Amino acid sequence: LDYFPFRLAEESHRQDSANLLIFITLLTLTILTIWLFKHRRFRFLHETGLAMIYGVLVGVILRFGVHVPQNMSDVILGCAVNNSPATLLVNVSGRFYEYTLKGEVGRGKGHQVQDDEMLRKVTFDPEVFFNILLPPIIFHAGYSLKRRHFFRNIGSILAYAFVGTVISCFVIGLIMYGFVSFMKAVGQLGGDFFFTDCLFFGAIVSATDPVTVLAIFNELKVDVDLYALLFGESVLNDAVAIVLSSSIVAYQPAGDNSHSFEAMAMLKSFGVFLGVFSGSFALGVATGFMTFTKLRDFPLLETALFFLMSWSTFLLAEACGFTGVVAVLFCGITQAHYTFNNLSPDSQDRTKQLFELLNFLAENFIFSYMGLTLFSFQSHVFNPLFIFGAFLAVFLGRAANIYPLSFLLNLGRKNKIGSKFQHVMMFAGLRGAMTFALSIRDTATYARQMMFSTTLLIVFFTVWICGGGTTPMLFCALHPIYRTFNQKFYVKVTVFFFRVGVDSDQDSPRRDTKHESAWPFRIWYNFDHNYLKPLLTHSGPPLTATLPTCCGPLARCLTSPQAYENEGRLFDDDSDSILNDATVSSMYADVTVSTDASGRTVNRSSGTRGLSDDCVDHDLALAEHEVAIRGTRLVLPVDDPVEPPTTVTLPSPPSPPGSEPRRQRL
Amino acid sequence: LDYFPFRLAEESHRQDSANLLIFITLLTLTILTIWLFKHRRFRFLHETGLAMIYGVLVGVILRFGVHVPQNMSDVILGCAVNNSPATLLVNVSGRFYEYTLKGEVGRGKGHQVQDDEMLRKVTFDPEVFFNILLPPIIFHAGYSLKRRHFFRNIGSILAYAFVGTVISCFVIGLIMYGFVSFMKAVGQLGGDFFFTDCLFFGAIVSATDPVTVLAIFNELKVDVDLYALLFGESVLNDAVAIVLSSSIVAYQPAGDNSHSFEAMAMLKSFGVFLGVFSGSFALGVATGFMTFTKLRDFPLLETALFFLMSWSTFLLAEACGFTGVVAVLFCGITQAHYTFNNLSPDSQDRTKQLFELLNFLAENFIFSYMGLTLFSFQSHVFNPLFIFGAFLAVFLGRAANIYPLSFLLNLGRKNKIGSKFQHVMMFAGLRGAMTFALSIRDTATYARQMMFSTTLLIVFFTVWICGGGTTPMLFCALHPIYRTFNQKFYVKVTVFFFRVGVDSDQDSPRRDTKHESAWPFRIWYNFDHNYLKPLLTHSGPPLTATLPTCCGPLARCLTSPQAYENEGRLFDDDSDSILNDATVSSMYADVTVSTDASGRTVNRSSGTRGLSDDCVDHDLALAEHEVAIRGTRLVLPVDDPVEPPTTVTLPSPPSPPGSEPRRQRL
Repeated sequence: LDYFPFRLAEESHRQDSANLLIFITLLTLTILTIWLFKHRRFRFLHETGLAMIYGVLVGVILRFGVHVPQNMSDVILGCAVNNSPATLLVNVSGRFYEYTLKGEVGRGKGHQVQDDEMLRKVTFDPEVFFNILLPPIIFHAGYSLKRRHFFRNIGSILAYAFVGTVISCFVIGLIMYGFVSFMKAVGQLGGDFFFTDCLFFGAIVSATDPVTVLAIFNELKVDVDLYALLFGESVLNDAVAIVLSSSIVAYQPAGDNSHSFEAMAMLKSFGVFLGVFSGSFALGVATGFMTFTKLRDFPLLETALFFLMSWSTFLLAEACGFTGVVAVLFCGITQAHYTFNNLSPDSQDRTKQLFELLNFLAENFIFSYMGLTLFSFQSHVFNPLFIFGAFLAVFLGRAANIYPLSFLLNLGRKNKIGSKFQHVMMFAGLRGAMTFALSIRDTATYARQMMFSTTLLIVFFTVWICGGGTTPMLFCALHPIYRTFNQKFYVKVTVFFFRVGVDSDQDSPRRDTKHESAWPFRIWYNFDHNYLKPLLTHSGPPLTATLPTCCGPLARCLTSPQAYENEGRLFDDDSDSILNDATVSSMYADVTVSTDASGRTVNRSSGTRGLSDDCVDHDLALAEHEVAIRGTRLVLPVDDPVEPPTTVTLPSPPSPPGSEPRRQRL
Repeated sequence: LDYFPFRLAEESHRQDSANLLIFITLLTLTILTIWLFKHRRFRFLHETGLAMIYGVLVGVILRFGVHVPQNMSDVILGCAVNNSPATLLVNVSGRFYEYTLKGEVGRGKGHQVQDDEMLRKVTFDPEVFFNILLPPIIFHAGYSLKRRHFFRNIGSILAYAFVGTVISCFVIGLIMYGFVSFMKAVGQLGGDFFFTDCLFFGAIVSATDPVTVLAIFNELKVDVDLYALLFGESVLNDAVAIVLSSSIVAYQPAGDNSHSFEAMAMLKSFGVFLGVFSGSFALGVATGFMTFTKLRDFPLLETALFFLMSWSTFLLAEACGFTGVVAVLFCGITQAHYTFNNLSPDSQDRTKQLFELLNFLAENFIFSYMGLTLFSFQSHVFNPLFIFGAFLAVFLGRAANIYPLSFLLNLGRKNKIGSKFQHVMMFAGLRGAMTFALSIRDTATYARQMMFSTTLLIVFFTVWICGGGTTPMLFCALHPIYRTFNQKFYVKVTVFFFRVGVDSDQDSPRRDTKHESAWPFRIWYNFDHNYLKPLLTHSGPPLTATLPTCCGPLARCLTSPQAYENEGRLFDDDSDSILNDATVSSMYADVTVSTDASGRTVNRSSGTRGLSDDCVDHDLALAEHEVAIRGTRLVLPVDDPVEPPTTVTLPSPPSPPGSEPRRQRL
């Protein structure tokens, strides 16, 4: 009697465990297959695409193979409540039980409540995506941003992310409104679909996914500036799309779903957009600024604190009504720029690895869940006309974002965005986790259900076709001589980019970058390097050297003792970047794994920060390894009839201070 | 209209974020204070005690400072249901909304539903503890177990854990039954309290906490065998207590709460105990055996897989009706013994650090939540008589566990358990996370509420008084001359144990340990070393060498290629342990931090496994550091009138193979 709730909870708990086990098994399978693909150097399908396929398979099995009838203990209450409260207190013979709203139950064809317990059980609360799975992905994106290149291209990135996304949102919204009006005219529409719904759809499918871009381009070692452009755009994109979609919801006049255009509401919505975005930005940056300089001796405490700080940024933003994901993105960027320098080397490793792991797990989970929902979601509305219209709109929206903006930006840029790279940007605009999370958040109405189903197909298409196809497409665009997919080809490409890197290095020596950059960047760089970095980190020159002499006592007070010690060996601004190539290669390990492993050991044991994040440097490191193997000359087998085998004589690698070159020692 | 659920969810989500933020802030505060304590070498209070104090403070504020009236959108339904189903489908004007049971709502004095929204919101689902917070703690305990010493003392550990916990459970149960009967007689009891409830209480308060034991004893470098005894007991304790408590619930005849003794039900309950325990054990060990030998090149995949495997062990056990926590404990022990050897060095670091972090966060979260519930839980039943009885029973139960068993065990042991150490075991039996989690799992009845409140007080008392007091108590017991708490004292203690270590080393050279051990251990050691290790890992001799020649083809087939490479440099069995001293010191960093940091660099750069986990070796490493600082003689300032300053001439540290001693290089 008294133990009834206890046993009931046990039973329900066993079911939940079994359901969660399905997802864990999915992830395990995905990991094993990823390993197999990497091991066999099979690259036609990206790992996220793979996770989706497994998800689809399990979805099919759950949908058609297993049928668990609804638990008889579920009671259907027909009560006199005219809305659905978030919490329900049920008075069961004098005792009060609390129930929380899980959501509206999907209805089948005949508007009957579906009775498949299993399908209902494997459906997650959509908020899980926003509160648990997205934050680590977005934080990792910010934390691993190559900031030097990001800030050098900040103007173009902001243009693509803000102007471009808004353009894309409205272009898609208008096209969809045309389609929806047509469908209504021919009687193809089964419910309401308003103009704001169209705009909302435009906003959610305008968010391109940084995950796949990061993965593919890291593997290919494309020109870093262009990479930063594309990656920066796709990261900020997400932030803009979230804020845009919630502004559109706020714009929707309460209780009045007409599509009349109201200037006041439009302005209000714009105000919401600005307020939420700047609030989230400020919050993220502020938390990133908080630095803990004295915890260095306790890496565990430091790592835990770092983790909690980034999580609390997210929660604080959500609690304030801002957007947690946006806050966490800027928190990641700021922490990578300042806080990272204050961490002990041990914690630097730990935080990098922790967020890498969280990102990997969350990302693969989302994509396999996506595959699963294709069959497990019970309220799909697949409308062929709408789907066709959506694909067309997404394509045109992306084109209206990239091409005109690139043309305008090229008027001002020194390093032009080539037309081939514009095509790459056009096709690398995959839709991923963010689009999915935004569309699954609310699937209550007919319009939202149709949006969700269509969005799912768009994500599938872009990840499988564009994602799988970006790799070859990219090479077609950038390097027309490319022919086969074999292993030597990758060496060839590396050499190609190596030479490109060396050439660009000769054209513009890297120490001069700050002189050739645009003046806002230069001013920011100087301010950051002379004042912010010394104030917030141990690196950079001490404030006593950079502030005017009249501020001497203040400067002495604000400079940490370590800053003086570091004065002699000032870190190069480049080397602050977090995702150095060793990390990349350990993530997407290839022929170069052993290189980086040994390279890293050298860096670690000598205590210096090692080689910087530049593409050029990476290839130098690679070449250094090759030299170590083959002697002092780098001869790489390039079986290209146009280009003869390349022989490059390399400068000896810079020896870290305080230790002799490594090979002489052994 | 249509966006109502969307907005409602947003609002509810903001509240949840704010509540979670309270806990994150608590954890952050705890971390900062822990750092301050470590930095200032203040050791009178353990960090878990600290987390509790912060929890209590926030609980007081929430209880008396903030009053958020219940949300008006909560609707109280008085429905004709005679039990509380797990899922409720509410028909709101044609739409079905799903509600999930959160639990019974606490009632205030007048059996009215309390209307404080805030207090209700900060209350977690008790299952969170079992499914999210406990598994990493228990896994970490298993993964960081010093297995050599654990297996050497396995007999005594099993005796304490199984026999001792059952004794303690029944002693406490009987004493409590006496108290409860007395209370019923004098009219002090406000509800039912059966004999099975008493036994249940005995089971949950018999679980001693490994966390605090681990922390305190690691800091003190006590004799490893005794440490293994205490730690092993407290780890297995938890497993036994969980299974015991669920067996007692199963014993309770359904619908009949009389305290009649039924032989049949007792037998059934014993069968449940054995079945659940052996099932969980088998499952944990089986998952630990699964090895992935070819993933070495991809540390990220390897770490992710390792993490998922341990989590799926937990879920699988729960889904099968076994006990996930027990399964995860044995999974941790097995993985540390076999799988750990197959991981790449990078993944070994990563997994260690990951579980260390998870353990740290989960542990501090549980303890601060404990503090919080003292004031936020709304159904406390504090009965002074019951509390007094419980404290007495816990004390007597522990005594009935330790002293008789130690006497019996000493009859068979060569390395006797001294009477002073028995006192230490008596007082180091803190109650912690597991006791709390078991008691909060069900607080529906009056008996359970009284148990929960009392358990909370017991945990508070043992953590604050015994936990804070174990350190000095331990020294009083082991080293009577000890006087002050200053810094030199710690050096003195280290020297004391250093000499103890050296002495015991001379008495029994460590290479001979397997010859002096009991024969079951010896058989197991040989079987494990010759067959299991080569089969499941890359270490150990190849099977071709250990199997009889007739099994040649089979042996060649089962031996991995790496095993042959490793043949020359067989790892010592000692060095398999995971929690080496570098890790310990980085967790509880003290004077020795720089030592271990440099020591670790040597190990890492030279590629060997480094010094083993033995107490002796640690002190040698410490001494080595001292020598590096002061010359070749170790003179430590011991200001003890009885003992003159100790001068120990140390052997030169063993140089890792393949590299010259470190100091000559620099």
